[in-house]
Amino acid sequence: MKFSEIVQKLNLTGDRSLTTSSATDPEIAGPAAVDEAVSATISYIEGAKFAHYAASTNASALILPLDESLQTQCNDRNIAWIAASDPRLLFARTIALFYQPFRPTAEIHPSAIVHPSAQIGENVYIGPHAVIQAGVKIASSVCIHPNVTIYPDVEIGENTVLHANCVIHERTRIGANCTIHSGAVIGSEGFGFVPSAAGWVKMEQSGCTVLEDGVEVGCNSTIDRPAVGETRIGQNTKIDNLVQVGHGCQVGKNCAFAAHVGMAGGVKIGNNVILAGQVGIANQAKIGDGAIATAKAGIHSDVPAGAIVTGVPAIPHKLFLKAAAIYNRLPEMYQSLRQIQRRLDR
Amino acid sequence: MKFSEIVQKLNLTGDRSLTTSSATDPEIAGPAAVDEAVSATISYIEGAKFAHYAASTNASALILPLDESLQTQCNDRNIAWIAASDPRLLFARTIALFYQPFRPTAEIHPSAIVHPSAQIGENVYIGPHAVIQAGVKIASSVCIHPNVTIYPDVEIGENTVLHANCVIHERTRIGANCTIHSGAVIGSEGFGFVPSAAGWVKMEQSGCTVLEDGVEVGCNSTIDRPAVGETRIGQNTKIDNLVQVGHGCQVGKNCAFAAHVGMAGGVKIGNNVILAGQVGIANQAKIGDGAIATAKAGIHSDVPAGAIVTGVPAIPHKLFLKAAAIYNRLPEMYQSLRQIQRRLDR
Amino acid sequence: MKFSEIVQKLNLTGDRSLTTSSATDPEIAGPAAVDEAVSATISYIEGAKFAHYAASTNASALILPLDESLQTQCNDRNIAWIAASDPRLLFARTIALFYQPFRPTAEIHPSAIVHPSAQIGENVYIGPHAVIQAGVKIASSVCIHPNVTIYPDVEIGENTVLHANCVIHERTRIGANCTIHSGAVIGSEGFGFVPSAAGWVKMEQSGCTVLEDGVEVGCNSTIDRPAVGETRIGQNTKIDNLVQVGHGCQVGKNCAFAAHVGMAGGVKIGNNVILAGQVGIANQAKIGDGAIATAKAGIHSDVPAGAIVTGVPAIPHKLFLKAAAIYNRLPEMYQSLRQIQRRLDR
Repeated sequence: MKFSEIVQKLNLTGDRSLTTSSATDPEIAGPAAVDEAVSATISYIEGAKFAHYAASTNASALILPLDESLQTQCNDRNIAWIAASDPRLLFARTIALFYQPFRPTAEIHPSAIVHPSAQIGENVYIGPHAVIQAGVKIASSVCIHPNVTIYPDVEIGENTVLHANCVIHERTRIGANCTIHSGAVIGSEGFGFVPSAAGWVKMEQSGCTVLEDGVEVGCNSTIDRPAVGETRIGQNTKIDNLVQVGHGCQVGKNCAFAAHVGMAGGVKIGNNVILAGQVGIANQAKIGDGAIATAKAGIHSDVPAGAIVTGVPAIPHKLFLKAAAIYNRLPEMYQSLRQIQRRLDR
Repeated sequence: MKFSEIVQKLNLTGDRSLTTSSATDPEIAGPAAVDEAVSATISYIEGAKFAHYAASTNASALILPLDESLQTQCNDRNIAWIAASDPRLLFARTIALFYQPFRPTAEIHPSAIVHPSAQIGENVYIGPHAVIQAGVKIASSVCIHPNVTIYPDVEIGENTVLHANCVIHERTRIGANCTIHSGAVIGSEGFGFVPSAAGWVKMEQSGCTVLEDGVEVGCNSTIDRPAVGETRIGQNTKIDNLVQVGHGCQVGKNCAFAAHVGMAGGVKIGNNVILAGQVGIANQAKIGDGAIATAKAGIHSDVPAGAIVTGVPAIPHKLFLKAAAIYNRLPEMYQSLRQIQRRLDR
Repeated sequence: MKFSEIVQKLNLTGDRSLTTSSATDPEIAGPAAVDEAVSATISYIEGAKFAHYAASTNASALILPLDESLQTQCNDRNIAWIAASDPRLLFARTIALFYQPFRPTAEIHPSAIVHPSAQIGENVYIGPHAVIQAGVKIASSVCIHPNVTIYPDVEIGENTVLHANCVIHERTRIGANCTIHSGAVIGSEGFGFVPSAAGWVKMEQSGCTVLEDGVEVGCNSTIDRPAVGETRIGQNTKIDNLVQVGHGCQVGKNCAFAAHVGMAGGVKIGNNVILAGQVGIANQAKIGDGAIATAKAGIHSDVPAGAIVTGVPAIPHKLFLKAAAIYNRLPEMYQSLRQIQRRLDR
């Protein structure tokens, strides 16, 4: 695809008018990372950290931030360029011009076991050895990959994709345009045991699990249903691999949770919350809109909207950075303290 | 179900005599969380933290602790109530009155592949596409959901439930009344590699895995078998989702491990041990009976019976709380220390 | 097997000449852990920590380090012994003399769904309900256990074993002699979302995933493919259960990653790197050859070759040990500091 054609298509999809170079119009074979790019590829630069690659990349075209010096540099190196305020977003749209995700054509494979009472919409793919149990409702254009198991009475919305070997339990409703990645388990029984003199007594998990539209759940992640009420994941929230969402959690819209995040029961999370990798949140904690927890934070109490927290127990990020810097000097501080004591004792 | 009927059934099952209100006998449609309860539901209050809900809940009935002021409050608000020393336990029993977990009727689905040498008991369900290999012994009333794989020579005890897409490896014995949740993997090869001049040499994992009666293993959790000897999970121990139990671990009875707990090889855990979310335990560490590790603790050495530990490396919980509180003041302490030094130097 | 026969076979496979006892030649039924060994078993002792077992073990034979006092002790107790500089390695080879891992004979099970365009080598086992999609290339002597799903165009090298219910996604190449354990997911879409005014925009993951020869991936671990370029795991790298390798990570040869390790996107890891349990590595961090991160380390920036790091954020291990020891004395330090201040103020 010619560079000019890429620009034209990005203009159309993004509904915008882009600044671009005009001197050169290379043929582009595909997108590449800026440090690995070869000739005839297009890449992008975002942030000061990567700016130096403009001088060394072998890409034939670059998506740049609104930085004239970078544009000049590209002109000098004969690199075609597009400048925008959000180069990473444009790069995502550029990849989509070259890449078509694998999507099987509509078919119910003869080896799939679909219960006669299940309702299957138009244009649905159900792959080999998938198992769809009684009363399940599958909307149109749903794609169910091989070896998926769906328990009775589940509802799956339009265009949703269930990747291979994932499991959707009874009492679950999944919205439209969701993606459940391979091996994920949705709607399983929450970990509800009550201590008694005779040992643990199981609290039956009679609640429901709801994934609103546009939710994505990573590979081998697990989302449990509660004893009563709902576990709910809000619209367009994106969940990475190996994440645990405990029974009765209420997660807002547009959140992003990285791998190995774990939420205990009854956690309430606002909208636009970001949890970095391996964050843990204790029972019943509430996280306000737009809050961010950095990697490995351990949250035991409520976090206000907009806060950035770090550490175990989690504290404001700026305070953590200061305290962590001094943590490294603890041995030295301890020596100073003993020295002062000796000095005063003399 | 009338409230009075619930009380009667709880009295029968719990073998006890409950104190209840007598003024009102509402019809109850089901259980609900106290903060989400609507009319015609029953909920419960446990602990001082939730007591204020007695004034605001819309539940028509409540299970209360032995607290007369709460009982009076309910009488005033025309809420039927039961009072007990263990309201959460009674609530669990109440849920069980309204909820019947999904349990397919006995059948070996024609699409399941059951090796002719496998022994299958009475009243067993084997779901679509399950695979039962040579020499497997399945006791009566076992329920094997779709897409489960059982390797050769595994033994499964009475009433045990294997949820969808879980995998039971060779050299595994699972007791009676166990539940293995979806995607869990039991009895897989331990991570045994010996460094050598030529790189890692695999140590074959020739040991066994034993789950005693009443064990529950969460979704996508993994329990490995050892090189020699056994990995063993004691009676009625409950394991949440995404937990790793390494090769050769010996876990006692009635333990509870929350999500993302990880145990390295050869860990020995007593009875009634509680490990909160994301706790990690190093090779060969021993944890005494009744010990508790709070969320994210990193345990490198033995923990005595009854201890509560926190932090990385884990220290007594009370000490951790004090140290963590002062951690936040490290920047301030550092300034004070420098100030004192300057003062003394003058 | 006679003890002398074990010695002879170890000499042959290890290409070495071992020092052994000569007084006794017991019949050995199999290997055992030194603290659990019964008569007619062989065990091993490695390191000072386990040396005391020479006085108490019931094993009939022991593999010892090069320590004459242990050898004398064994002679006195009539325990046959082999002495070597690497007893654990010899013990691994001894286990292999007694244990044959389960390996089904070559067969394509009639219930497996193999696309006509897939190329299947000689001597391949494809278990019940496995699904092999279009264009997949399976080399000779590959073993694919039940309920595995392979997406289109994947390549699997010779002798590789895919355990039950694992999933291999499109755009993946797996080398020879690899083992993918049950439930693992290889080559799934990386977690690539770009924030925009309209919420998260998906960045399509058009890259590839490559596992070089001899790689082992643990149960329910997940390895994602990137937006562009490759995710690559180097030769003979061993990955434990429940590990997350993010999109675009480059991992070198002979590394070992313990359970629950999580790598964000674009991490670069050298050769012979060891990551202990629950270690997390942030986006784009680089870890040099031979570095070690101890359990639960949180790595945010580059780690030089050969370094040992600990803590969150990770610091040199020795410094961490000193700081952590003083962390426990923070309450005491805080009191001292206030005392000094009061003293100076008087």
